[in-house]
Amino acid sequence: MKLFIDQLQEKMIAKNSRICVGLDPHLELLPETVLDPELLQDQAANQVEIAAAVLKFNQDILAAVADFTAVVKPQIAFYEKLGSAGFKVLKKLIKKAQTEGLLVLLDAKRNDIGSTAAAYAEAYFAKETAADAITINPYLGRDGILPFLKNKNKGAFALLRTSNPSAVDLQDLKLANGKLFYQAVGDFLAELGEPYLGECGYSNLAAVVGATYPAELAAIRKQLPQTFFLIPGYGAQGGGALDIKAGFDSQGQGAIINSSRGINFAYRAAAYKNYGAENYAEAARAAAREMRTEINAVLSLK
Amino acid sequence: MKLFIDQLQEKMIAKNSRICVGLDPHLELLPETVLDPELLQDQAANQVEIAAAVLKFNQDILAAVADFTAVVKPQIAFYEKLGSAGFKVLKKLIKKAQTEGLLVLLDAKRNDIGSTAAAYAEAYFAKETAADAITINPYLGRDGILPFLKNKNKGAFALLRTSNPSAVDLQDLKLANGKLFYQAVGDFLAELGEPYLGECGYSNLAAVVGATYPAELAAIRKQLPQTFFLIPGYGAQGGGALDIKAGFDSQGQGAIINSSRGINFAYRAAAYKNYGAENYAEAARAAAREMRTEINAVLSLK
Repeated sequence: MKLFIDQLQEKMIAKNSRICVGLDPHLELLPETVLDPELLQDQAANQVEIAAAVLKFNQDILAAVADFTAVVKPQIAFYEKLGSAGFKVLKKLIKKAQTEGLLVLLDAKRNDIGSTAAAYAEAYFAKETAADAITINPYLGRDGILPFLKNKNKGAFALLRTSNPSAVDLQDLKLANGKLFYQAVGDFLAELGEPYLGECGYSNLAAVVGATYPAELAAIRKQLPQTFFLIPGYGAQGGGALDIKAGFDSQGQGAIINSSRGINFAYRAAAYKNYGAENYAEAARAAAREMRTEINAVLSLK
Repeated sequence: MKLFIDQLQEKMIAKNSRICVGLDPHLELLPETVLDPELLQDQAANQVEIAAAVLKFNQDILAAVADFTAVVKPQIAFYEKLGSAGFKVLKKLIKKAQTEGLLVLLDAKRNDIGSTAAAYAEAYFAKETAADAITINPYLGRDGILPFLKNKNKGAFALLRTSNPSAVDLQDLKLANGKLFYQAVGDFLAELGEPYLGECGYSNLAAVVGATYPAELAAIRKQLPQTFFLIPGYGAQGGGALDIKAGFDSQGQGAIINSSRGINFAYRAAAYKNYGAENYAEAARAAAREMRTEINAVLSLK
């Protein structure tokens, strides 16, 4: 079987797409036709019905965007909120996405000492309904990262520069050698990822670099020519298409841009309001197509 | 209700105990009388039986050690490995621990942007069978930490200096101001934790500092007089009782020392082998009592 990163590149080329659709089912944003808001009054008591609504909503979104994206990214926190019912939904979603020909990047930001990291890798990369890649947090160093790279059909996206306002608190601390901390994390990840390079020239050890800091994005792209980027923060978090151009290589490869709320809940946005809440899937489809076009245009690709 | 950190201190004093018992059900270490090793041949097919064995084992351990510890720390990776069945086990365990009068520190090392961190806080601190505290990873800065502190009855333990061999990879990078990165993380956590101080003088925002680096432990205790420490790495990871003395304040407070494998699987250790595998709970009880005594002795407490 192909390395994860080559599978990703292949699907991106086949779909001429550099987007990633996040699946973040914020319960209070689901259409009333899918989830009766009254059920949210007592979430614990109505967990099963809520989980069923989340599954339906996400399956519809998946089917609607499958033509325009190579990969979807469920944010596991929203499934963990639903307890054991949420885990069942997540498994079904992963299977459904893979049946639709999509890769699944599980946004879990897991991290721990080696033996525990191995347990996480087993939890999410095991045979049945397993994700294709996972986000991880690099704070514990290589022990906490390598277990996720053991299976070369799987990928890991380590946090490098995150997209949130307080990313600067620790990631931007200045080191004695003049670099910023996140730049040193970048060097570290690049070295660690070297043995996991695919034919496409990128490594199975990828990195998360926020779109909300465009200048940093350009510099880190230059610094890490073999590190594939997941770029979050597009849309709801404030990053636009122009901001992310610098994250790609000269071939328009090497990165995917994630949007979650902007696609999942497009039906609530002014631009797609005319679809109506009941046609949330069509609205998401239109938003995904538009985002793909917008990014390809910025990269001067058709 | 009392602040989390005051609840912890109160229970520690009541039990004259500075230990924390990790609940890390490594499946291959469970006694054969509890878990038939043949079931491990096909974990996916036997998930329900395996989960039942994990529940039984942990309930027995809980009951056995309850006299000697204020707090237990389930490592969530081992429950996530069991999928939705594992989540049900975890909920039952949390309830059982709290019924036994123990606090539950969920070792999950969660981390994300603000809105997602809030979802995690809701997932693990919500009303029913909720944990009392959680471990978190501070890499995303304050946005990713503050949602876990919103409810003052709950606590958060942020990774500062971890106990694994590659902790040094990133945590020990030298900053321009002469400090090491983890020391700057310490200053950051202390400042962030200031509004959450309890009557005991410590903050609901606690920190994880490994026992495997004793010199660092002494320095960081001095640096952060209001930060409570969870000290892992005792026992299986190589830290001994003398190594951890420096983690406590002059009153012998301000820290808990975690042991997971050393207590859970005491029945496999030379010192407790005479109990026999079927008496794993009694072996764990003896190991917990011994660890409490050892640590109190090092601190010159009875």
